[in-house]
Amino acid sequence: MLQYALLHICGYKLSMDDIKAFRSIDSITPGHPEAHDTDGIEVTTGPLGQGFSNAVGLAIAQHHSSAEFNKPGFELINNYTYTFLGDGCMMEGVASEAASLAGHLQLGNLIAIYDDNHISIDGDTNCAFTEDVAMRFKAYGWHVETVDDGDHDLEAIEAAIKKCQAVKDKPSMIKLRTTIGYGSLHQGTGGVHGSALKKDDITQLKKKFGFNPEETFVVPQEVYDLYHKKGAEGAAKEKEWEQLLEKYAGSHKAEAADLKRRLTGDLPEGWEKNLPVYSPSDSAVASRKLSEIVLTKIHQAIPELVGGSADLTGSNLTRWKDAVDFQPPSLGIGDWSGRYIRYGVREHAMGAIMNGLAAYGTILPYGGTFLNFVSYAAGAVRLSALSQVRVIWVATHDSIGLGEDGPTHQPIETLAHFRALPNCMVWRPADGNETSAAYYIALTSKHTPSIIALSRQNLPHLENSTLSNAIKGGYVVHETGKADITLVSTGSEVGICVDAVKYLKEKHSITARVVSIPCFEVFDAQSKEYRLSVLPDGTPSLSVEVMSTMGWERYTHEQFGLNRFGASGAYKDVYKVCHIYIFIFQY
Amino acid sequence: MLQYALLHICGYKLSMDDIKAFRSIDSITPGHPEAHDTDGIEVTTGPLGQGFSNAVGLAIAQHHSSAEFNKPGFELINNYTYTFLGDGCMMEGVASEAASLAGHLQLGNLIAIYDDNHISIDGDTNCAFTEDVAMRFKAYGWHVETVDDGDHDLEAIEAAIKKCQAVKDKPSMIKLRTTIGYGSLHQGTGGVHGSALKKDDITQLKKKFGFNPEETFVVPQEVYDLYHKKGAEGAAKEKEWEQLLEKYAGSHKAEAADLKRRLTGDLPEGWEKNLPVYSPSDSAVASRKLSEIVLTKIHQAIPELVGGSADLTGSNLTRWKDAVDFQPPSLGIGDWSGRYIRYGVREHAMGAIMNGLAAYGTILPYGGTFLNFVSYAAGAVRLSALSQVRVIWVATHDSIGLGEDGPTHQPIETLAHFRALPNCMVWRPADGNETSAAYYIALTSKHTPSIIALSRQNLPHLENSTLSNAIKGGYVVHETGKADITLVSTGSEVGICVDAVKYLKEKHSITARVVSIPCFEVFDAQSKEYRLSVLPDGTPSLSVEVMSTMGWERYTHEQFGLNRFGASGAYKDVYKVCHIYIFIFQY
Repeated sequence: MLQYALLHICGYKLSMDDIKAFRSIDSITPGHPEAHDTDGIEVTTGPLGQGFSNAVGLAIAQHHSSAEFNKPGFELINNYTYTFLGDGCMMEGVASEAASLAGHLQLGNLIAIYDDNHISIDGDTNCAFTEDVAMRFKAYGWHVETVDDGDHDLEAIEAAIKKCQAVKDKPSMIKLRTTIGYGSLHQGTGGVHGSALKKDDITQLKKKFGFNPEETFVVPQEVYDLYHKKGAEGAAKEKEWEQLLEKYAGSHKAEAADLKRRLTGDLPEGWEKNLPVYSPSDSAVASRKLSEIVLTKIHQAIPELVGGSADLTGSNLTRWKDAVDFQPPSLGIGDWSGRYIRYGVREHAMGAIMNGLAAYGTILPYGGTFLNFVSYAAGAVRLSALSQVRVIWVATHDSIGLGEDGPTHQPIETLAHFRALPNCMVWRPADGNETSAAYYIALTSKHTPSIIALSRQNLPHLENSTLSNAIKGGYVVHETGKADITLVSTGSEVGICVDAVKYLKEKHSITARVVSIPCFEVFDAQSKEYRLSVLPDGTPSLSVEVMSTMGWERYTHEQFGLNRFGASGAYKDVYKVCHIYIFIFQY
Repeated sequence: MLQYALLHICGYKLSMDDIKAFRSIDSITPGHPEAHDTDGIEVTTGPLGQGFSNAVGLAIAQHHSSAEFNKPGFELINNYTYTFLGDGCMMEGVASEAASLAGHLQLGNLIAIYDDNHISIDGDTNCAFTEDVAMRFKAYGWHVETVDDGDHDLEAIEAAIKKCQAVKDKPSMIKLRTTIGYGSLHQGTGGVHGSALKKDDITQLKKKFGFNPEETFVVPQEVYDLYHKKGAEGAAKEKEWEQLLEKYAGSHKAEAADLKRRLTGDLPEGWEKNLPVYSPSDSAVASRKLSEIVLTKIHQAIPELVGGSADLTGSNLTRWKDAVDFQPPSLGIGDWSGRYIRYGVREHAMGAIMNGLAAYGTILPYGGTFLNFVSYAAGAVRLSALSQVRVIWVATHDSIGLGEDGPTHQPIETLAHFRALPNCMVWRPADGNETSAAYYIALTSKHTPSIIALSRQNLPHLENSTLSNAIKGGYVVHETGKADITLVSTGSEVGICVDAVKYLKEKHSITARVVSIPCFEVFDAQSKEYRLSVLPDGTPSLSVEVMSTMGWERYTHEQFGLNRFGASGAYKDVYKVCHIYIFIFQY
């Protein structure tokens, strides 16, 4: 509500009627702020720890973009990023991860204001949260200021902010000791966290602060005047910035055009010509390697592409060869302009930071980890989908095919999980052209995050696999005549199905069609006619995917999969023990 | 491999052949240790941060159980819990959450040994992890010791452990500065993290440490002798403890019987008589409230039940009225014997700690949060399922029915996610008797975790809902004659379907059967005959669940659900905007 109230009094498109509609249906003031619903809301938050981590992403984007675009005389990109967080955020692991990375990266323009009110939903934080937060943030490498009386001492708050602004080599945190529900009869208790105040309480509170208790939804004119003045100052600064940008465009034409283009979300013209194309005679390659080839070929054409990995670079193959790391220059191992982020083993923060990077507008982020560990970041992936940001997960080691690491690392439920998430595209390409297609759709879907599941093991290139087929999300990979049965599959199992067809023909005189559905979401969006041409009514069908069969019933009569955990061993042995080879009749 | 090697030389059931079979199929030495595969492996770890957080759970269990069972002269339960962790664990948020809680709880018997080798998979940790870990742990309230030369200085290591053992009011962490791959030509680099050493490297390493380079899989007899002696000492201590337990049984008969029973995993005889029973005339109640009633009624009968919430106690209704908090007595707000844990806003740590609590053997843990935020703990839930531990999630606010908090808090994909996870029971009870059934099966399933999804809003009690029907996972709730159509539903939508039936009959002369499937996993395990009696072949069928329809295709011809995000508003308005009322023909 604080955000909505401030947007209202500053003159954003948020009326008093919108305020009155708080938490009611079809309002632009939902219970938790959503970026695409409301002007001036920059990221979708509410789930604890996400907003703070988004801010770390916004600050990374600012540091990176300033290094890319600022020129002598043109300090085009130099904003501070401010974020508010409470005790709940402070307890969440995702925020701890993001804070540790922010400290490492020395994000001097990031200022976090910690509403230290000693109250969370269960009551006094002394029941669960007694750590020394200031000391913890100092340990992360942050500058820390403390304001003892956050309820009244505006001078101290301003002084603290100014000190933080002056610290350029560290992110800053202001520990603001406040009283929750300040002015209520129940101030300083858990009772005022989420419940509306009772009538008598509101009456005394309004009186205390000089309001007429009979009036509701009133803002004194002098308050409007003050904040509208602030709003006008902001608008003037925006205009000034736009003029600076136009001047910049005169002397730095290419950079200005690039910046303007990035802010539209469009990719540079012709970028897609860099996507690799394969034919069935090309040798088998792991799709994680195919992904690396895509990134290598397109990164020059798409300068906003900024990647990284949660400490699995050599396994995810997410770093093109001559990439520069995004690092504070003082460390001597990279630069602010670097386009490769070392996220550390922080999957959840990586997801939430990518949401912030995408929200900034100048960056198209991707991040790598094993498919199984995208689950660690489920909270952030959900917000990518809900807030409609373009974020790409390079999710390698996508099945029991990863072999020796065993069931703790082999996803079973993961694809079903994210396929069930609205506005999230889950790709599991079967070969080179499908991998190019996955990137093509992921990169051009401005308002949708994507998870690209990639194999550790080598995969052959398939006969009908083309970019134009694969971008439909599903198509016929193999057919030798009128089919008695349709085999439907994804990723590493498509090639196995193609082999099975040959066996079925030779040994059982059965003619089979093989369909690849690299992306449910995209295939489901095709015309019914097209879908029926791929999966004809009446032909018996079987799906084959070496993980949970959940969701496959929509396409096929029978499902072959793995509704149990995998095993540790050489991948062909794991396939055997999981009966994949029995499926294909002793292939 | 270190764990397996130590188990082998200490004389556990793990032979040299098992060692040779490391990471191969059907071995008891999988790539990451699994509790149920291998004697002496106490928790399933591998996914980073989980093992450390399990240890916090084991230490909580020890502190709690010692308060419950120890008597003057009988220090029956007094073990230390040791855990090893590396830089990866240190970066994961789940470990940060668990460390903060452990510090708050003053878990004096927990000793963590941090292998501070400055290397993670991406190379030198200075690329992503430069925080002051010792300072961070001090901020959490831990005692910290540092050993500078962890490669050689055994005396310093022993001294540090002894110092930590003597600190009784804080958990302890030993920061052990080591060299990864010590002795290898590539020691101290990322190259030795996960890859096998090359032949020449192994040769020089064996020579360096006095081994014959030609011999493989050899343990010198004096090493066996030393460790077998340690093993024998351990066995003697175990025997001593068993004798102490027998002596204890003489003077504390009931406590000893209780302890022995708990260790079998069986519940006390007759506990189930406390489960509440309802009839359709009872007034409508929210299933989160029904869950509270169950906990209130059974907690005395099942003393091993230890609950908690991730800072949503008043919303999850997870705390029976006179519960005592599990807290260090010095805080004055609880006791070590308390059975209610204030987890703070730390869902992921709560999940991993519950795995440790369950593994200890004397505790049956449950924990509450909103269903949507069980996803934050996906990594831990997966390990509950894989390691076959009995852990119960009280997952309230289970749908768009939560209303005002909006789409950031309304689960859509969550049930599909966990239904796709093997060995995980997902319950969504529709009323009182189904809630009792969910608890009945969850509590008696010794080797399976459960997630019980519960409503915020009131639900009527249904006519055929009985414990014996509901424990089958699916049954006919309502029928008035030969059905033209079958409506299949769960939770809060079952009552809506029953109302729809009346409307269908009156306005369209259509006879409908209503089926409730509170738990897919349990229903799928029933005989085919029973399943067909509930969902007859041939009758047209429609599923109704206000979230992702994924997975429902297995039961019904058509699916009604919500393959989009929800909305913020009064819950009946949200239902309208999501067309739930259109579904039931303007109900």
